[in-house]
Amino acid sequence: MKDKIPNKTIERIIQYRRCLEQIQKEGRSHVFSHELAAHQRRSSAQVRRDLMLIGYSGSTSKGYNIANLIQTITHTLNDQEGLRVVLIGVGHLGKAILSYFNAGRAKIKVVAAIDADSQKFGRVISGCPVSPPEQLEQILLKQTISTAILTVPAAAAQEVAERLVHEGIRGIVNFAPVKLKLPPFIHVEQVDITTLLEKTAFMARPKTIT
Amino acid sequence: MKDKIPNKTIERIIQYRRCLEQIQKEGRSHVFSHELAAHQRRSSAQVRRDLMLIGYSGSTSKGYNIANLIQTITHTLNDQEGLRVVLIGVGHLGKAILSYFNAGRAKIKVVAAIDADSQKFGRVISGCPVSPPEQLEQILLKQTISTAILTVPAAAAQEVAERLVHEGIRGIVNFAPVKLKLPPFIHVEQVDITTLLEKTAFMARPKTIT
Repeated sequence: MKDKIPNKTIERIIQYRRCLEQIQKEGRSHVFSHELAAHQRRSSAQVRRDLMLIGYSGSTSKGYNIANLIQTITHTLNDQEGLRVVLIGVGHLGKAILSYFNAGRAKIKVVAAIDADSQKFGRVISGCPVSPPEQLEQILLKQTISTAILTVPAAAAQEVAERLVHEGIRGIVNFAPVKLKLPPFIHVEQVDITTLLEKTAFMARPKTIT
Repeated sequence: MKDKIPNKTIERIIQYRRCLEQIQKEGRSHVFSHELAAHQRRSSAQVRRDLMLIGYSGSTSKGYNIANLIQTITHTLNDQEGLRVVLIGVGHLGKAILSYFNAGRAKIKVVAAIDADSQKFGRVISGCPVSPPEQLEQILLKQTISTAILTVPAAAAQEVAERLVHEGIRGIVNFAPVKLKLPPFIHVEQVDITTLLEKTAFMARPKTIT
């Protein structure tokens, strides 16, 4: 059943939950679909459709019960215990991501980092120990991690990704500027910050008369 | 003329250039469209179409001259002098991005950072000085910067983005988990790392029999 939820719906319900947590912090207990929709710049119909897909429908007079809805989403995503992920490649971006996610955020925690540089072995960065590639298998088995963040150089990304898949990783967020070629059952999200920035700079360039 | 190049083509030619630079480092002078295509997991026809759009066509017997093609792309993007961008919000992610882009990368340089925390004023992080919001206008004028990286908390993002647009920024790479509402002539790229990671973890979760 859960597998029938479209990819894009998953992305939106994650965003709804974040939004619900914000509204809850403001001291409110209920919220209308049109409010959630406005927050996310979507239509109310879309919000209602997405929530129906995870088996939720709210009272129309008072709106959705925020606490209940957060619980339903969390149950659907099955991440109430937080997400434990492994990071591969402890360079500048890798360290940055360690510091970003391990700085008190509850839901995502990078519990292990791998780097090929022996000078980094045994170091603890943002609460996360750095281990050599040989220990990958053992780490994944012990902690049942199925998601990896890939922050290795472009030239190494494909090989490392194949190794990760071989060791049981099923989802990769890839920051290396390389399109990975992996089996279709592996979920890959590509984050190419450099390209996005270069593209934005091009779109934003001052227009000159030529 | 340049404004007629589709958004997606711009993104691809940025990726072709990076790929060309890699191939050049391997000591080669020419490359075929099908090789570039294979690198990027696209079709040769797409590569040829994209390069024709920027007015480039290669010799069919030897392929494209790599140095020439890099030059043409750089001329099209008009970024041979490097891209100077401003970063708003020097928290964990902001610092991470400063360290990532200012660590010897040639094309993109974060030349100014803004933060509302007075304890950060005057500090230099990864070679970039941190200034108070009041100095934004002056900084943008002096250095003709039209692109900003937004790494402020979600609650502040919309207000800060409006201020940036008011001060002349035309392109924003937004890392705050908030959809910005800005005039249509502003180019916004959204990078929501947390959502991508939560989504990937969901897609990669171990399947259980229920």
